[in-house]
Amino acid sequence: MRRSSIFLGALLLASGWARAHELSEATQTCLSCHVSVLPGIHGDWLKSKHSRTRPSEAMGKGELERRFSANSIPEELAHVVVGCAECHTLNPESHPDTFEHNGFKVHTLVSPRDCSVCHPVEASQFEQNLMSRAHGNLMGNPLYAALANSINGPQAVKDGALLQREPEELTQSDSCLACHGTKVQVGPRMTRETSIGSMEFPALRGWPNQGVGRINPDGTRGSCAACHTRHAFSIEVARKPETCSQCHKGPDVPAYAVYQVSKHGNLYNSIGNFWKWDEVPWRVGKDFQAPTCATCHVSLIVDPDGNPLTPRSHAMADRLPWRLFGLIYSHPHPRSPDTTGFRNSAGLALPTELTGEPVETAVIGPEELGKRLSAMEGVCSSCHSSPWVQGHFEKLKKTISDTNASTLEATRLVLRAWEKGLAKKENPFDEGIERMWVEQWLFFSNSTRFASAMAGADYGVFAHGRWDLTKNLRKMWEWLEEREGK
Amino acid sequence: MRRSSIFLGALLLASGWARAHELSEATQTCLSCHVSVLPGIHGDWLKSKHSRTRPSEAMGKGELERRFSANSIPEELAHVVVGCAECHTLNPESHPDTFEHNGFKVHTLVSPRDCSVCHPVEASQFEQNLMSRAHGNLMGNPLYAALANSINGPQAVKDGALLQREPEELTQSDSCLACHGTKVQVGPRMTRETSIGSMEFPALRGWPNQGVGRINPDGTRGSCAACHTRHAFSIEVARKPETCSQCHKGPDVPAYAVYQVSKHGNLYNSIGNFWKWDEVPWRVGKDFQAPTCATCHVSLIVDPDGNPLTPRSHAMADRLPWRLFGLIYSHPHPRSPDTTGFRNSAGLALPTELTGEPVETAVIGPEELGKRLSAMEGVCSSCHSSPWVQGHFEKLKKTISDTNASTLEATRLVLRAWEKGLAKKENPFDEGIERMWVEQWLFFSNSTRFASAMAGADYGVFAHGRWDLTKNLRKMWEWLEEREGK
Amino acid sequence: MRRSSIFLGALLLASGWARAHELSEATQTCLSCHVSVLPGIHGDWLKSKHSRTRPSEAMGKGELERRFSANSIPEELAHVVVGCAECHTLNPESHPDTFEHNGFKVHTLVSPRDCSVCHPVEASQFEQNLMSRAHGNLMGNPLYAALANSINGPQAVKDGALLQREPEELTQSDSCLACHGTKVQVGPRMTRETSIGSMEFPALRGWPNQGVGRINPDGTRGSCAACHTRHAFSIEVARKPETCSQCHKGPDVPAYAVYQVSKHGNLYNSIGNFWKWDEVPWRVGKDFQAPTCATCHVSLIVDPDGNPLTPRSHAMADRLPWRLFGLIYSHPHPRSPDTTGFRNSAGLALPTELTGEPVETAVIGPEELGKRLSAMEGVCSSCHSSPWVQGHFEKLKKTISDTNASTLEATRLVLRAWEKGLAKKENPFDEGIERMWVEQWLFFSNSTRFASAMAGADYGVFAHGRWDLTKNLRKMWEWLEEREGK
Repeated sequence: MRRSSIFLGALLLASGWARAHELSEATQTCLSCHVSVLPGIHGDWLKSKHSRTRPSEAMGKGELERRFSANSIPEELAHVVVGCAECHTLNPESHPDTFEHNGFKVHTLVSPRDCSVCHPVEASQFEQNLMSRAHGNLMGNPLYAALANSINGPQAVKDGALLQREPEELTQSDSCLACHGTKVQVGPRMTRETSIGSMEFPALRGWPNQGVGRINPDGTRGSCAACHTRHAFSIEVARKPETCSQCHKGPDVPAYAVYQVSKHGNLYNSIGNFWKWDEVPWRVGKDFQAPTCATCHVSLIVDPDGNPLTPRSHAMADRLPWRLFGLIYSHPHPRSPDTTGFRNSAGLALPTELTGEPVETAVIGPEELGKRLSAMEGVCSSCHSSPWVQGHFEKLKKTISDTNASTLEATRLVLRAWEKGLAKKENPFDEGIERMWVEQWLFFSNSTRFASAMAGADYGVFAHGRWDLTKNLRKMWEWLEEREGK
Repeated sequence: MRRSSIFLGALLLASGWARAHELSEATQTCLSCHVSVLPGIHGDWLKSKHSRTRPSEAMGKGELERRFSANSIPEELAHVVVGCAECHTLNPESHPDTFEHNGFKVHTLVSPRDCSVCHPVEASQFEQNLMSRAHGNLMGNPLYAALANSINGPQAVKDGALLQREPEELTQSDSCLACHGTKVQVGPRMTRETSIGSMEFPALRGWPNQGVGRINPDGTRGSCAACHTRHAFSIEVARKPETCSQCHKGPDVPAYAVYQVSKHGNLYNSIGNFWKWDEVPWRVGKDFQAPTCATCHVSLIVDPDGNPLTPRSHAMADRLPWRLFGLIYSHPHPRSPDTTGFRNSAGLALPTELTGEPVETAVIGPEELGKRLSAMEGVCSSCHSSPWVQGHFEKLKKTISDTNASTLEATRLVLRAWEKGLAKKENPFDEGIERMWVEQWLFFSNSTRFASAMAGADYGVFAHGRWDLTKNLRKMWEWLEEREGK
Repeated sequence: MRRSSIFLGALLLASGWARAHELSEATQTCLSCHVSVLPGIHGDWLKSKHSRTRPSEAMGKGELERRFSANSIPEELAHVVVGCAECHTLNPESHPDTFEHNGFKVHTLVSPRDCSVCHPVEASQFEQNLMSRAHGNLMGNPLYAALANSINGPQAVKDGALLQREPEELTQSDSCLACHGTKVQVGPRMTRETSIGSMEFPALRGWPNQGVGRINPDGTRGSCAACHTRHAFSIEVARKPETCSQCHKGPDVPAYAVYQVSKHGNLYNSIGNFWKWDEVPWRVGKDFQAPTCATCHVSLIVDPDGNPLTPRSHAMADRLPWRLFGLIYSHPHPRSPDTTGFRNSAGLALPTELTGEPVETAVIGPEELGKRLSAMEGVCSSCHSSPWVQGHFEKLKKTISDTNASTLEATRLVLRAWEKGLAKKENPFDEGIERMWVEQWLFFSNSTRFASAMAGADYGVFAHGRWDLTKNLRKMWEWLEEREGK
């Protein structure tokens, strides 16, 4: 299919392909320059389903085969393939980054609202996803914002003290907000010289960025292209774990690293090239033999005869009972994707007390937790018997409890440091002993829990796991003892 | 072949495939439910050689082509393909986890003894492999068990001291024993509700686990599925380095990480998709152009004309002169796969003295060492001239000696800390200075040696290599000096 | 093509293939033994273009298609394929490692001068590449050599001090020089027993090694095989990022690690198996959809219609305005590939002052910097619009400035330690506080800059990025404060 699309690409301008494939006139105009001005984007798009599919056809597919989730489609979009103009000129009034471009009202950032014209179910599920709030949940929570500032702010010794300023916007964009998403803002028009004369474009702050929680100029949250990489929007790419690895590999959230050393990751890496990555729905055992991130967390899975086993969801916590990624403790998943509204009894915007107990109003109750656990167990049960699955989650629950206990001990030590005047609580994230505390929960506890959940043992032992948990807590304690003994 | 097996799978129940492929009646009964109850396992098995091969055929192959190593086979297994029942109902009396299941005596854990009905040579070689003893060698050696407990045990400050309890079984299972293997124990029967009514299964402790040194309910050691991932048991998977990476990636034993940045790993990652992964015997230069872990350590290698170069061995130290993985020093390989019986002059169950000299009765002598070195050099010599090979091992020997010398210095410093009362030797693994000592040999020396042996330079320099070796020793020394100076 | 070459290989000796493919008589003589003595090398070479191409044909190709860059070729090489003898008997007088071997004057190390007979443009560009000087730039700069010695030298406590000796040659070869390249020296002839009788070979010191800056016995610098892995010399391998990862993954220069978590790396890993890796010239959007290391830094890129976008260059800094890899600061790229001649105002062989300002005579000026930036932006512009590209480099420039500022603060702290007598400046790289300083620039600043340049965010935050930058600087400061307070 790929080869034939390349072949078609070659014929594009020389033949009647454009008409045969029902390119809109607007898109034909775009391509008249952009085949040569941005050849990489054009080549990528030629390999996409968008370049070969008219919405009117996509609508006609069976419920399980469909990727198009709207019930209707504006007439002007229905009978042309999805080209440049179809997305980049949608809803021009709602986009502050719209600019006049050769007679068209074009905007740079295609937003989830644009995508929702054809994919409304996915867009609205994604709104219920913590990820769509990744920008606000970080920057809008004073505690987490203070952590980001402590990481990114420039330090300098002045008058005998090591001071730290607030990081500038460009620095944040290159650091935490690369994944969490920037707030893209439209500035004044600027004139640029291009190969076909001078042109006016809007200046954009916070751009480029494809963070999953990006705040778009039209006010929408998130970037579908964070996972559905433009301009091929290949389901193969979205299903492969390397897509998730862009933001989920590091010591804070080593999901991809853990996956790589799990049995699942082994099979993916060893024989994944034989799997069928484009099939919708995705048949377990037939199209693939081991799960990727998407399989467990997003995809619609059916059995080899096509009977549905697990529904598709872009609200990715639908199969997640607990939030393993502890800030600072692991806990039942938040009720709401917007986590800035929580208040624990200390008045902090956290879903748990400083001693680890969940804040009841912030997290899902036992019934919802059980429902989500069952949903995930349902995925496991395609390949694992029930004693296996139950044994697995029993270990995970123990590991959550072990690591939370370790975080509690570390928290007590940092509180003791504050009490004894060995550190200052005003900024809880900048001093040596405080950084050790943060690593206890952010790196070592999280790593140990991900290793348990996804069965990639090493990350639970020597690679930022229990080795570090016990070593670090001991170091914190020795540090305190030594200084208190003076 | 894969595609056709998928096709056959689709036809399985609708056609006469079952009879044509000579499924046993018992396996047909299993499949009547399990095609839909565990579709992932069924799909995986359909892609296996087991699902298409009758032992009577497998026996008839030439010596080098054969994967079946028994001289005979029970008549009832000879003429049916290897399906569910063939393995899961073998030797029912020897399996304490056998349970009644729709008229069959089924056991969950297929053990090496079961596999040895068709693969006795491999099973008995594996018994001579350190890996088959991975559980006992860790848990049955008081020193190593103390290390595991120091890593995994929960810590809490009590009465002014940081105390550590023994880890619970579930924690160990999720940590060290994930790779080393749990001891799987059979508990009372329990009734579970399943989709086809309530059923009785035995409760299993230490399950799930596929650690290479697992102790099975039938008393056998090891899990063949640790590397020969069920239920496809694909030789391609076993030959690929990702299989080994499940347990050999972390900072203690970064073999896979080193391989990835070696020339060998580069070629595997760059052009391995063109290699022939299913050929038996495996032809160097023709089927593959660079080795994987299996090539050097396990596989039967022949030249392009089929002449044997190196025999297959599942006793993986057969081509290994030294044990690079130092606990605490690198040394000639142990004589016996069970390392719990060694005693050095300090009475510790170690194959070396605390000062590094090998315990003569514990390790192989010069003759056997030379034989194993020649065996490995034989593998290298398929692609490298003898000056190359000799130069390579000269560097490795130097690196073993360098790193052992560094471990000796670190050991002297920790002994000094104990003597001066700056640390307590009762638990040699829990205090800050002791953890630095452990990292010197467990992380930095091991990493440097693996990097040398497999030519993945970075792990010998900046990624836990000599940078850390010299930095850490200096830190240990500065720590001591500062405290002694008080 | 691969398959057919395997097929041809099988027929090689049995048929008239040798004549049909115009193997030289000398190469036929080599193969008469080496088909069976080094079957892996033979098999690898059979898959190469060399084994199927006569220079006279290669010369005839169009300018963009050509990989052969000479204007003429000695008659004796023109009409035979490039086999063993064609390279290993070239320029015998210039190779001190030449030895008599069955009537031929053979040398082991094929040098860039040998390769330049057919590839003179590439060889001379490579001479302008920092990499070709990797050995001398490290070992010939007293400051960097001191760093290497501090990393690799054996330490021992003696008379109350922790002393460090100079590392031996074998240790350096196994450490820094594995990538930087050894100096290969020819020793006395030695007799070796081989399978076909005793033979004389020259002893080689510093061998094996394929470091990119190797000093060859003939005095030339570098190893083409560092990237063009022998003996297939596959352009596919050279284009794939795993080739670069051999030396560019570790914490000092995590380019490959960053790439893996970038959008580019995601696409490469997810769909790279569909790309055309052997096409010359390489068509963006058609042959590949995302860049690898080679795409941006080396390759000739054309648009889908074959129009050149970016020329090939083996002087890899041609598209690099800044040297991100800071020793100790990031700065405009050096003027000369030999960096040992620079002197800053403190007399150190560094391209910047200790306070970060570039030494004007050492680095390229604004005009050349602008030219190189434009060249790189030209690569980006195949797939990214100009606001994107400009926004990207704006972030990078900010990150260079942020990290340099952080290095300056760290440098001030280490200077303070020296002034206060808390550390000794004689060896600036061996004490605890000095190692923290080195990690500030060598690990954390470099990592943060690479993460920015290649958009792999995590390495700019938690994986040796800004988290470590601010933590480490604070630790340095706290260490000083505590000791000064005594």
